[in-house]
Amino acid sequence: MNRRKIGIDLMGNENPPEILKAALRNHPLSKNADLVLFGAPEYQDDPHHYVATPEFIEMDESPLYALRRKKKASMSVGLRWLKANKIDAFISAGNTGAFVSSAKMILGNIPGILRPALLARMPTKKKPVTVLDVGANIQCTSTHLVQFAKMGAASCKILGIDNPTVGLLNIGSEPIKGTSELRLAYQALQNMPQSAFRFAGNIEGKSVFDGDVDVLVTDGFTGNIFLKTGEGIANLILDRFGEILSPGEYQGLTRKQPKTDSPSGFGIHPKIQDLASMLHYAEHPGALLVGVRGIVIKCHGYSTPAAFIKAAEGALELISV
Amino acid sequence: MNRRKIGIDLMGNENPPEILKAALRNHPLSKNADLVLFGAPEYQDDPHHYVATPEFIEMDESPLYALRRKKKASMSVGLRWLKANKIDAFISAGNTGAFVSSAKMILGNIPGILRPALLARMPTKKKPVTVLDVGANIQCTSTHLVQFAKMGAASCKILGIDNPTVGLLNIGSEPIKGTSELRLAYQALQNMPQSAFRFAGNIEGKSVFDGDVDVLVTDGFTGNIFLKTGEGIANLILDRFGEILSPGEYQGLTRKQPKTDSPSGFGIHPKIQDLASMLHYAEHPGALLVGVRGIVIKCHGYSTPAAFIKAAEGALELISV
Repeated sequence: MNRRKIGIDLMGNENPPEILKAALRNHPLSKNADLVLFGAPEYQDDPHHYVATPEFIEMDESPLYALRRKKKASMSVGLRWLKANKIDAFISAGNTGAFVSSAKMILGNIPGILRPALLARMPTKKKPVTVLDVGANIQCTSTHLVQFAKMGAASCKILGIDNPTVGLLNIGSEPIKGTSELRLAYQALQNMPQSAFRFAGNIEGKSVFDGDVDVLVTDGFTGNIFLKTGEGIANLILDRFGEILSPGEYQGLTRKQPKTDSPSGFGIHPKIQDLASMLHYAEHPGALLVGVRGIVIKCHGYSTPAAFIKAAEGALELISV
Repeated sequence: MNRRKIGIDLMGNENPPEILKAALRNHPLSKNADLVLFGAPEYQDDPHHYVATPEFIEMDESPLYALRRKKKASMSVGLRWLKANKIDAFISAGNTGAFVSSAKMILGNIPGILRPALLARMPTKKKPVTVLDVGANIQCTSTHLVQFAKMGAASCKILGIDNPTVGLLNIGSEPIKGTSELRLAYQALQNMPQSAFRFAGNIEGKSVFDGDVDVLVTDGFTGNIFLKTGEGIANLILDRFGEILSPGEYQGLTRKQPKTDSPSGFGIHPKIQDLASMLHYAEHPGALLVGVRGIVIKCHGYSTPAAFIKAAEGALELISV
């Protein structure tokens, strides 16, 4: 088997490119896979693992403008490398709108899929839940939502979940709740021959975390609010717990880097360790763009270098499926 | 000063009416205010504090149907008592759509307000944030959102906050983010002479909990998802902490009833006590329907009797303003 090549966009996120690059180069993962970085010429190091790109897309730039004018931006060049099979997966923490549009344009959609969606996994009281769309499509029709259900169910099968349950994120469980598109999606999902998945109806934001559905379907606006609200309230709670727990326990909860062999040997309760990694779900491994031809992962603009590594590890797993 | 009269709809929520009634009647609040209950004739006790209503609206009933056909439902009769000044405030945990529509129809809107909104307060790392709309209007135009900003700011002034900051819940901070209605609302709020409040721009779900805005404006669908997601993730975290904390501490976190003099005397850490009441925000004091003529409070369908009491206490405070 060839060594896997993971492309990473150094630019357009909140990390200084120099620091992000150093963290990636020094990580043990770079011994198991080729990390090909796409970024400004001034950061170029190893010419075999760095693609110098003269432009990059700003966080607040208009996606349409960026798409038309910045064909040499780091994210566009990376996606073209993916299209040409020069890399096996591509990761960016840049402008979401530009990234999704570029991926659709450069890679193309999987046949029959109208709208690719960003898919993330979140913790619940039981098994994790696959949520899509978490930000690719601000407004969605019922047809899009039904396709998200199918793509979410398919992604569960890759994970070994044979007959996944699918719910619609809504403000109440009754079929008449929510927007007209949600009501239509409810009807369509209910009337569908359910060989690929079981439709569990509408799920409220509160009930998602009980862990009774494998897939949660929503439009990209609501899904993004859902994901980030969870992160915000988790941070709030951790902040308060900082006043209750011992310093070592608190460090266990808030550390942003993956655990390394700690010489200081804080006595961190394993359950707190567990909780900490659960609550930092939003950082890693990023969201997978499903529905395009290729493995494309979007990280938050505020992702730490550790989150990029998690995304790269996730990409490696997907390549091996 | 006359004794205050708080109307409470016994019906259409998840509590058995008999049990809810007993909890309300036995609570010390009923010594300070008249609790007038609206419900089915079979539960009638004191005829001076009980209005027997032959109908009630089911949780999953179509609001339009209920409005047209069930004029003698407990919530409709209660709202007419409020209109006639026979009670000073009215509380229901029934069907949200029917309750909001009935309140608009029976009480009428405040002049100039197109859409009343449900207003709730949530905890943050600093001061609480006032969020509206949390469920009255599934779809909103920019004009509605701007009116919510004004009503939210006005409610802050009642609380003594002189120059409140107002943010728009969105998926990114840039003015171009989100739906077209959000972009229009952003422009309108930015161009408004800001004497009544300061516009802080778009706020992400993650940043709301930093506590930098006093008012968070959103449509009722997104706001409801936001509110319930916060509750869901808080429950998830408490569930995990149950495995870490001592039984006494855990009881402090999860108990649903307000603290009474506990003979068992568990050693609950005051910070945990504090966190617990913060995390149960969603239960109490319910959401205030702003923009109608009268004090109207909506509780969740799954509100405990304690949440009804909190709502009644909130109503009493508002009456005294």
